[in-house]
Amino acid sequence: MVDIPDLVARARDGEARAVARLISLVEDASPALREVAAALAPHTGSAQVIGLTGSPGVGKSTTTTALVRAYRERGLRVGVLAVDPSSPFSGGALLGDRVRMQGHAGDAGVYIRSMASRGHLGGLAWATPQALRVLDAAGCDVVLVETVGVGQSELEVASLADTTLVLLAPGMGDGIQAAKAGILEVADVLVVNKADRDGADQTVRDLRYTLSLGGRHDLPGAWRPPIRRTVAASDTGIDELVETIGEHRAWLGSSGEGHRRRVVRAAREIEAIALAGLRERMGDIRGSAALSTLAEQVVAGEIDPFRSATLLLDQL
Amino acid sequence: MVDIPDLVARARDGEARAVARLISLVEDASPALREVAAALAPHTGSAQVIGLTGSPGVGKSTTTTALVRAYRERGLRVGVLAVDPSSPFSGGALLGDRVRMQGHAGDAGVYIRSMASRGHLGGLAWATPQALRVLDAAGCDVVLVETVGVGQSELEVASLADTTLVLLAPGMGDGIQAAKAGILEVADVLVVNKADRDGADQTVRDLRYTLSLGGRHDLPGAWRPPIRRTVAASDTGIDELVETIGEHRAWLGSSGEGHRRRVVRAAREIEAIALAGLRERMGDIRGSAALSTLAEQVVAGEIDPFRSATLLLDQL
Repeated sequence: MVDIPDLVARARDGEARAVARLISLVEDASPALREVAAALAPHTGSAQVIGLTGSPGVGKSTTTTALVRAYRERGLRVGVLAVDPSSPFSGGALLGDRVRMQGHAGDAGVYIRSMASRGHLGGLAWATPQALRVLDAAGCDVVLVETVGVGQSELEVASLADTTLVLLAPGMGDGIQAAKAGILEVADVLVVNKADRDGADQTVRDLRYTLSLGGRHDLPGAWRPPIRRTVAASDTGIDELVETIGEHRAWLGSSGEGHRRRVVRAAREIEAIALAGLRERMGDIRGSAALSTLAEQVVAGEIDPFRSATLLLDQL
Repeated sequence: MVDIPDLVARARDGEARAVARLISLVEDASPALREVAAALAPHTGSAQVIGLTGSPGVGKSTTTTALVRAYRERGLRVGVLAVDPSSPFSGGALLGDRVRMQGHAGDAGVYIRSMASRGHLGGLAWATPQALRVLDAAGCDVVLVETVGVGQSELEVASLADTTLVLLAPGMGDGIQAAKAGILEVADVLVVNKADRDGADQTVRDLRYTLSLGGRHDLPGAWRPPIRRTVAASDTGIDELVETIGEHRAWLGSSGEGHRRRVVRAAREIEAIALAGLRERMGDIRGSAALSTLAEQVVAGEIDPFRSATLLLDQL
């Protein structure tokens, strides 16, 4: 029997093993899941969630590493959720007190969790918010969520973030490509990484042009995503990026958009959990005596399948 | 207001327009759907459902046409559901009394329904059983369901059949290819069509060899799928095929397998309807005041998302 309140207390004290254990408990939908979720709830809501997304090769992991360093320098506790299967952070479980991230080995103020091979139960869209909730309750001031910017499930995961950074690199698909992929619509900050390379100016111009074509950013009072240039490998532009993220956070607060986003996110999470619960109950029904009886009656023409379905649902 | 009992009575009298109207009502999930389903139920269960599946080009439509002719010659009423989008039967609504099928124009004993562009609501897996139910209640003795033998949804549709014919043609992917695709596992009768072409003997040998490797057909008392050769375009081998289908039907009756298959099919249909109903109720919940309130409480840390989901489900 796991002592959940003790585990939560130790996680909040900064014990990496306790954090790892809690994440495993919620992620694997263990019987203790509900108790864990209830114990975490009062401690959640303070972490600032920053999503990093973009095509493979734009430098998401390098940028994540640089941001971890920058936030650590500011005395903040940082969590990293690596959803991108190609991320160097992936492939391990929670590294916690034995962080393999370059420059952060042994730093107890950083938690890194690879989500790449997780989510066998309800997909990443299920597992990632749960892991996020643990890191939040454990006292992370900032959680960086690194995703590949393609596919529906990645967009769902990106929607977890308070602030979404869309990364591009010169010559790796310009702004118009990104616009086509719908990726600009989710951007709060556009980051042209590897900005010391040829073509960086062109990429910035492409992005400016694409943004000028309009979109949700044109609404009155809307946040207009700024474009920042970085060379994450040498920490160039990272302080400015951190500043921009701070400005966006301030806007989220003053405009009420931050609260709105979190409510939408919570609503989606509740819905996903409810749907998973319903599917589970349907699974119990499959092969049940009740369903067999109803099916026999349908075959005999005594009842129609719609009436049967209603009777079946009444038993749920 | 539609007079459903009158519509069902007219459909059973052989009025093609009434049949078409009923199919539209159930297929589009109209408000009258439940009333229609209830009115049909007592009249269902007598149609023999024959599935025809196979790769494009093996001659499914030609074989369907030949089988329609053969069953009409025997005085039976025949329905055709064309699920294959490449079928020449597709692209029209219910043709009914103005059948465009070669050799059956104006034959009131044949109903043809294209399902190719249907199923926008719950997919073909939803629409096809409903259409089948109407044709059954309307007095069709035989319903031929023509599907492409690829993809999960097609396999689901094929599982509607009492007897599944898997069609192959010489040189169009031999028996081993078919086995790889899992298509042999669903076969009750294997039909090598275009059997006058070079390579027919080889295709038959391949099939015999593949079948000898075992599978569900090896169980005691199991039906061993016979291999029939046809040249559907010239009606060659069609009488023998009709005879084989009759033998399979007799086996379905004597072994109890026919009843078992229909019960499994009805159970799947009930489940699909129940799940669709649940999704619909979840849709009502989305954007509801209850969900917004719960989401606000989650953001405030007053409650966890699992408890919220339970509260939400309690309101369904």
